[in-house]
Amino acid sequence: MTDTSLSSAPRTPLTLLGTGAMGTALGRAWLAAGHPLTVWNRTPERTAALTAEGAVAAGSAAEAVAANRLVVACLLDDASVGAALEGADLAGRDLVNLTTGTPADGRARAAWAEERGARFVDGGIMAVPPMIGAPGAFVLYSGDPDLFQEHRDTLAVPAGTEYVGADPGLAALHDVALLSGMYGMFGGITQAFALLRGTDVAPKGFAALLVPWLNAMADAAHRTAERLESGDYTTGVVSNLAMQVAGTDTLLRTAAEQGVSPELLSPFLDLMRRRLADGHDAEDTTGLVHLLHTR
Amino acid sequence: MTDTSLSSAPRTPLTLLGTGAMGTALGRAWLAAGHPLTVWNRTPERTAALTAEGAVAAGSAAEAVAANRLVVACLLDDASVGAALEGADLAGRDLVNLTTGTPADGRARAAWAEERGARFVDGGIMAVPPMIGAPGAFVLYSGDPDLFQEHRDTLAVPAGTEYVGADPGLAALHDVALLSGMYGMFGGITQAFALLRGTDVAPKGFAALLVPWLNAMADAAHRTAERLESGDYTTGVVSNLAMQVAGTDTLLRTAAEQGVSPELLSPFLDLMRRRLADGHDAEDTTGLVHLLHTR
Repeated sequence: MTDTSLSSAPRTPLTLLGTGAMGTALGRAWLAAGHPLTVWNRTPERTAALTAEGAVAAGSAAEAVAANRLVVACLLDDASVGAALEGADLAGRDLVNLTTGTPADGRARAAWAEERGARFVDGGIMAVPPMIGAPGAFVLYSGDPDLFQEHRDTLAVPAGTEYVGADPGLAALHDVALLSGMYGMFGGITQAFALLRGTDVAPKGFAALLVPWLNAMADAAHRTAERLESGDYTTGVVSNLAMQVAGTDTLLRTAAEQGVSPELLSPFLDLMRRRLADGHDAEDTTGLVHLLHTR
Repeated sequence: MTDTSLSSAPRTPLTLLGTGAMGTALGRAWLAAGHPLTVWNRTPERTAALTAEGAVAAGSAAEAVAANRLVVACLLDDASVGAALEGADLAGRDLVNLTTGTPADGRARAAWAEERGARFVDGGIMAVPPMIGAPGAFVLYSGDPDLFQEHRDTLAVPAGTEYVGADPGLAALHDVALLSGMYGMFGGITQAFALLRGTDVAPKGFAALLVPWLNAMADAAHRTAERLESGDYTTGVVSNLAMQVAGTDTLLRTAAEQGVSPELLSPFLDLMRRRLADGHDAEDTTGLVHLLHTR
């Protein structure tokens, strides 16, 4: 055995269904790493970028599925997965579904695949296409643990892998939870820049303060997690809800002074006030999680 | 001159008005660094922690102001500053106001102090009391640049200093913008944990994914700043508004599946839809800043 044994080992061949921007980025990463790749796309012309780099285009999704045991789907939506694979023989196949969907979509598609004799893993890609193959990109996986273990090295080629459980709905649940966190933060960033609009404050200089500030404050998620697990949400006299609610007046008055709508800020401030009115003045914001539940 | 010359140099004496939790933390830091400290609080008993550590309690705010040229106010709100200093002779004094307020409060208080012959700097403390004296805490300052330069070393004792401009409203504006960004992010964190509630996903394990994800995505603020300065908000085919709005359906359907109210998420998604409907499909979310302006 030599140092070259790994690099000369044959790479697992696989099939990729869907060669949009994301599919093409994934396919490129596999081709570059030496994996034989069969591709299919509903609009066949869109496979050209990958066939030019060595992929083999199949004439139909069924043919593409027949070509390899490992089949990765990266299509428009869950309905597209069902439509593409309608005529394919999935028996004995390992289907990895990187198509965006909800947890219920993931679970239903897993049951559908298992009925057809396939093992199934659902995935959520936490990256945009230019990030594929670069550090930082990762994909959340959930579903059949044996499939994931067997194909882990192949799946790790385009992006980091994060297996979150056997329940096939968990990848989508984690995906949506992370994106929801991100959009909340983007709302905060939007509100912050709106407040500075029309002033002499240079956006780039402000961003140099805002980004490290958000990075430091993001650690609050660790404390929220600890409190959700312990069930004790009290924070004592430091930054408790009573103090935070008292401070919201300055946020809203400043928005009004700057001519900025409070619509991105108000829903969270309203939840803080509701939780405080329920008698939780010595807690931090952890308990707001409960106010969001509609059942 | 030796290495000990700095540590043996006499420290600037100063006056601190307000010895609540934050004032006490600030006062402790100055006392520990060897600054002679005169303190005053509306409820005199609350100065005990600092007088026990060497501070001198003044019988009135006017006496406290008379004791030192540098006067730091850390009171409940802007009205408390006016009330406390009503009978004090501010002529020749350097007033540093760390009391929470809006930009307009800061500007009005600056004019008020200047009329009384004082130089004025407003400050916004970006920390909770236990962070004072520890790395990471910082205070935003704006107002008289000469006052700030002269007292910079003294002001830097309890927390890092960040001077943001001569306009005395700018410290409060930056303070509120940073807090608004933080509350947006807290809203996203709350939404994320709410989605996982009632599932087997352990909050601490999820936080270990969420925090680095938010840290990576916070860099978007740098891109937003660059785009606001250049005026070009287009992002091409990657993560443009058209694609992002198409993805919001999965976020809202997942929230519905998990029994979670979309109230924290919807305002931002609504702004994305409005901006898309205005024809900005090839832009990123930067332009949402404009939709928040009410005048």
